[in-house]
Amino acid sequence: MRDGLQNEKEFIPTSEKLKLIELLSETGLQQIEVTSFVSPMWIPQLADSSEIYRAVKQKEGVTYTALVPNLKGLAKAKLVGIKEIAFFLSASESHSKKNINKSIQEALKVGEEVIREALASGLRVRVYLSTVFGCPFDGPTDPQKVLELCCQLLALGVYEIAISDTTGIANPKQVAQMVDFLAKDLDISKIALHLHDTRGSGLANVLAGLTHGITSFDSSFGGLGGCPFAPGASGNIATEDLVYMLESMGVETGVELNKLAECSDTAQRLLGRKLPSKFLQTYLTTTCEEVSK
Amino acid sequence: MRDGLQNEKEFIPTSEKLKLIELLSETGLQQIEVTSFVSPMWIPQLADSSEIYRAVKQKEGVTYTALVPNLKGLAKAKLVGIKEIAFFLSASESHSKKNINKSIQEALKVGEEVIREALASGLRVRVYLSTVFGCPFDGPTDPQKVLELCCQLLALGVYEIAISDTTGIANPKQVAQMVDFLAKDLDISKIALHLHDTRGSGLANVLAGLTHGITSFDSSFGGLGGCPFAPGASGNIATEDLVYMLESMGVETGVELNKLAECSDTAQRLLGRKLPSKFLQTYLTTTCEEVSK
Repeated sequence: MRDGLQNEKEFIPTSEKLKLIELLSETGLQQIEVTSFVSPMWIPQLADSSEIYRAVKQKEGVTYTALVPNLKGLAKAKLVGIKEIAFFLSASESHSKKNINKSIQEALKVGEEVIREALASGLRVRVYLSTVFGCPFDGPTDPQKVLELCCQLLALGVYEIAISDTTGIANPKQVAQMVDFLAKDLDISKIALHLHDTRGSGLANVLAGLTHGITSFDSSFGGLGGCPFAPGASGNIATEDLVYMLESMGVETGVELNKLAECSDTAQRLLGRKLPSKFLQTYLTTTCEEVSK
Repeated sequence: MRDGLQNEKEFIPTSEKLKLIELLSETGLQQIEVTSFVSPMWIPQLADSSEIYRAVKQKEGVTYTALVPNLKGLAKAKLVGIKEIAFFLSASESHSKKNINKSIQEALKVGEEVIREALASGLRVRVYLSTVFGCPFDGPTDPQKVLELCCQLLALGVYEIAISDTTGIANPKQVAQMVDFLAKDLDISKIALHLHDTRGSGLANVLAGLTHGITSFDSSFGGLGGCPFAPGASGNIATEDLVYMLESMGVETGVELNKLAECSDTAQRLLGRKLPSKFLQTYLTTTCEEVSK
């Protein structure tokens, strides 16, 4: 929901968002990032975050998380009783500057405060580390820099870091090399992959990550989303496409594909346009029987 | 061009097709399937095949091939001086019946005639073997059946067989297993992969094929195409996305990505709709400098 909707031009009514979250809750997903406690000045789309979090019917066994960029956001998140937050940080200086107007060190300082206070309040913390595979402004990202940031964040007590291909420029070889590089010095089970399908390599990058030991992958239903401050960044990999590929490989996800596609179809009716998920479009033009074959 | 355009509803003027072929010829592609000598009754879109083949400016170093379904098509193809043809055959009975109203054995008999006469006339022959990874009607395809058909076809003298995921249901594990299975009994350098991106796994399947020894991959510019007789079959994998992934992995393709994107952009202006290639859409909304980073 968060990464999927933050780029939308029109504000989606809170009641519609709640409906989507409730549909997502029934698909078997175990974790849903429902919103962001970012200043509404920056992301007006998610200005209703407190309302959303208060109103959502939480299903047993599903964790409802939210993005929190700073102490102010954390205070808001705590007020509504959130149990897990995600913080974000960039691995490239220029992207960090353009995204949040802070250097990496300045952002890390904010991160330390947020993470320490969140943990002290009994919350779990996850971190998105952006532009790990390269930056549209700074070019390639040094894997050593990525490793250092991951180690600093893990030392603070975050339970997982989603290394992120913010602009969808990663390739499978690079993903494999990055994962292998990190695995030498840290517990790779604490690393997730957050991939965008900007240039079509998203699921190939999943495959590379999977075969090198990654078991946690971010995605958005329908393939919604993008990064508002990175040129050329289109949507996340689509949850349907990810689940279809994994399940057909025999990797259990616990997600019911048909329910997920129905949820994305609801979203595309709401938004009035086709969403990028390939599975979704195929599902909607064939019968369930054909799809299952 | 052939697999890309055969599904289009409107007839594309011959002069426009020629323009696209000439643009494709300048991208560095070494092989372009320009048309099909199928009865215009079946594929009216490609009714101008003889005219196309006669008029196209052939660039040195590029092979211009065409699909030929039978002896009648072969006669037409020979009349215009073609040097290489592609024949097609299904690995599943029901798809074969629905696609060409023949059993596999009947189709193979036609294939033998066409391949023998083509080779006797000095032409090179390639074969598409359809529904190798499963069929919307018959379900899974027996790898042993695929192997037998490949062996029969190679024994006839075809230089390459493109094992085809006609409805885009293959997954990387299955691709790897199929390639390994075939490699035990035949020369895998004679096997190509023809993948559709119907459910989003196309490039992940390329990666699986590549890491298991396949070096020849079919694709269509912009991601155009599909199979008119297989429900739910959307476009081929997009050449831009394939080239982007391979080149960024350090696998040389010889194809100039920017020229290819310009060609696909010409096609999408002509067709009046966005084409599925992710790289293409990203390329068109960012500057070249950003893309190259």
